[in-house]
Amino acid sequence: MPKFSNQPDFEMRVIVVLCFAMLLSNPVFAQKKSKKMGAKFVLVIHGGAGTILKENMTPEKEKAYMDKLTEALIAGYKVLKDSGTSIQAVQAAIMIMEDSPLFNAGKGSVYTNDERIEMDAAIMDGKTGKAGSVAGVRTVKNPITAAIAVMNRSEHVLLTGEGADAFAKKSGCTIVDTSYFFDLNRLQQLRKVKEQEKAVLDHDGEQGMHTDSSAIEFNVDLNPDKKFGTVGAVALDVHGNLAAGTSTGGMTNKRYGRVGDVPIIGAGTYADNATCAISCTGHGEYFIRNVVAYDVAALMKYKGWSLEKASHHVVMEKLASLKGMGGLIAVDREGNYTMPFNTPGMYRGAIRADGKVEVYIYR
Amino acid sequence: MPKFSNQPDFEMRVIVVLCFAMLLSNPVFAQKKSKKMGAKFVLVIHGGAGTILKENMTPEKEKAYMDKLTEALIAGYKVLKDSGTSIQAVQAAIMIMEDSPLFNAGKGSVYTNDERIEMDAAIMDGKTGKAGSVAGVRTVKNPITAAIAVMNRSEHVLLTGEGADAFAKKSGCTIVDTSYFFDLNRLQQLRKVKEQEKAVLDHDGEQGMHTDSSAIEFNVDLNPDKKFGTVGAVALDVHGNLAAGTSTGGMTNKRYGRVGDVPIIGAGTYADNATCAISCTGHGEYFIRNVVAYDVAALMKYKGWSLEKASHHVVMEKLASLKGMGGLIAVDREGNYTMPFNTPGMYRGAIRADGKVEVYIYR
Repeated sequence: MPKFSNQPDFEMRVIVVLCFAMLLSNPVFAQKKSKKMGAKFVLVIHGGAGTILKENMTPEKEKAYMDKLTEALIAGYKVLKDSGTSIQAVQAAIMIMEDSPLFNAGKGSVYTNDERIEMDAAIMDGKTGKAGSVAGVRTVKNPITAAIAVMNRSEHVLLTGEGADAFAKKSGCTIVDTSYFFDLNRLQQLRKVKEQEKAVLDHDGEQGMHTDSSAIEFNVDLNPDKKFGTVGAVALDVHGNLAAGTSTGGMTNKRYGRVGDVPIIGAGTYADNATCAISCTGHGEYFIRNVVAYDVAALMKYKGWSLEKASHHVVMEKLASLKGMGGLIAVDREGNYTMPFNTPGMYRGAIRADGKVEVYIYR
Repeated sequence: MPKFSNQPDFEMRVIVVLCFAMLLSNPVFAQKKSKKMGAKFVLVIHGGAGTILKENMTPEKEKAYMDKLTEALIAGYKVLKDSGTSIQAVQAAIMIMEDSPLFNAGKGSVYTNDERIEMDAAIMDGKTGKAGSVAGVRTVKNPITAAIAVMNRSEHVLLTGEGADAFAKKSGCTIVDTSYFFDLNRLQQLRKVKEQEKAVLDHDGEQGMHTDSSAIEFNVDLNPDKKFGTVGAVALDVHGNLAAGTSTGGMTNKRYGRVGDVPIIGAGTYADNATCAISCTGHGEYFIRNVVAYDVAALMKYKGWSLEKASHHVVMEKLASLKGMGGLIAVDREGNYTMPFNTPGMYRGAIRADGKVEVYIYR
């Protein structure tokens, strides 16, 4: 468990700055330049928080993450630059990360205890207050598209299980065979966790995280690597509207239909033009109990705190004091953004109207 | 759709006052009198809000509701009087209502579109901040017991679907055959809704509640009777601890694994000793998007508002302005309680340490 205070700055802070001369000279953008230049917009993304340490990373793997985060940012940037909506930008960025095996969402989702994939996703529109989410989908290539379909094409907010898969299919989301999600690394990761679990159980479960002495023996150490893979994006568009989206494969070795904070509006995902857009990553149960995403908004709305102060308080003080590990990304309607986390690392990045890309991994 | 402001007081306000002389003379209570007398405790319950009108009620039916609410209050009162915890009192009161076919929870749960039962429940402990919930369970006799098992016997908050049923079984909750939930009235209610839906769809879906023109045709009028059956309880115990619990069968004719606000901590259910305990009933999607239960707590915590002012604001102003129909019950650690609702009626009641039972149906 990392110490949350007095933690030394980690070795590496990586900033990739790309100028997009090519992009800006692209006729599509040049045409609309007068309309958009000067307009404020920003996209912030994360690819999960956790015990992400430089010493456990190869240069190749590090580069792969940096490149994929950059690709996701540019995909969303193109949407925003072209006067697209914050919802569209969030979707574009998240789909890039869902399609990559690097992140625990979509293609890279971790396995459940019974070696299946169960994915959750959510979207919220800060302009309308509308929201959509899905929990436990197994056949939707990009769960964020299913969440958007729930928001736009139903009067519901949360659909679950096979019903959510069926709704996504009916809504025109791309459906894939479950073999699409097969990933040998993830399967090995699950089996390693199950072996560790068995070892712990054989040792009287004394290292378990149970909450009372009669606890059922399951998920003894939910997440031995303390990596909370999830992807998310928040955006402010040129129309002044905020949006937030999040997508995850959940926890390795999860069972009993466990659902974390991601599809819970107010916990893992929240957006309101009056305050902010938030997407979280971390130990989901802590984020649910503490209604983390909405709490940031409530501190801004009811106490008049800045985005930075409210986000920092919730992640670095409140959650950290409870040992609730994770982080969040946040943007307000002025275009201010912040990416606090109380773990050693969080895959994250941001891009503003000037096209400057920031991508970071470690503290 | 009722008007939310200027609504005339409805005809009948029913107050049942019972003195419990018998109860108080019971040796079990007499023994512990010195320990408990003067201790502050309170239990508040609801059995759902909606278009509950005196003119649609028979005297027999009205009496049945009043009696069952009273029974639930007394069950919880006994727990609190005997120095039990607020969690135990909430469980006792909710189980009485779950076991009754009168309320849309447990035995009285409404049917899904495919003529099945899918129940949701949640519990939160204001002392510890721990919470548990289940969504879409089909075989648990009392879903509130499954939520409590999730809270006490796992490190998770939300379990869903078959996994939640399996966990409940493993935890020792009473499991029943799905035939236990068979209810001819509820089935007829579903079939009537499906016929109405078909009629609406045949008429171009123009009366639907869809959110865009390409909306999928489903659940056209989710709830033509505008009754949001759900049961809930909030309590303050003699130890000064708050708890909240909620249980529901969801919406008649729901499909695609739709889940409402009940199992969403912060939306339908929330408790924190620092502020209040809240259980909601109403059009769940509005309660999710507006993070209703936590919003009341946030207004108290961050703006210093009273329980009454915060609850009234959220239900009668915020939700009502959005046409989000429903209500909530709330108690704070001083023992203040309130039961605001913006629908014509809400089955509700309260009991305090003095044993006075209040039970109401209409506005």
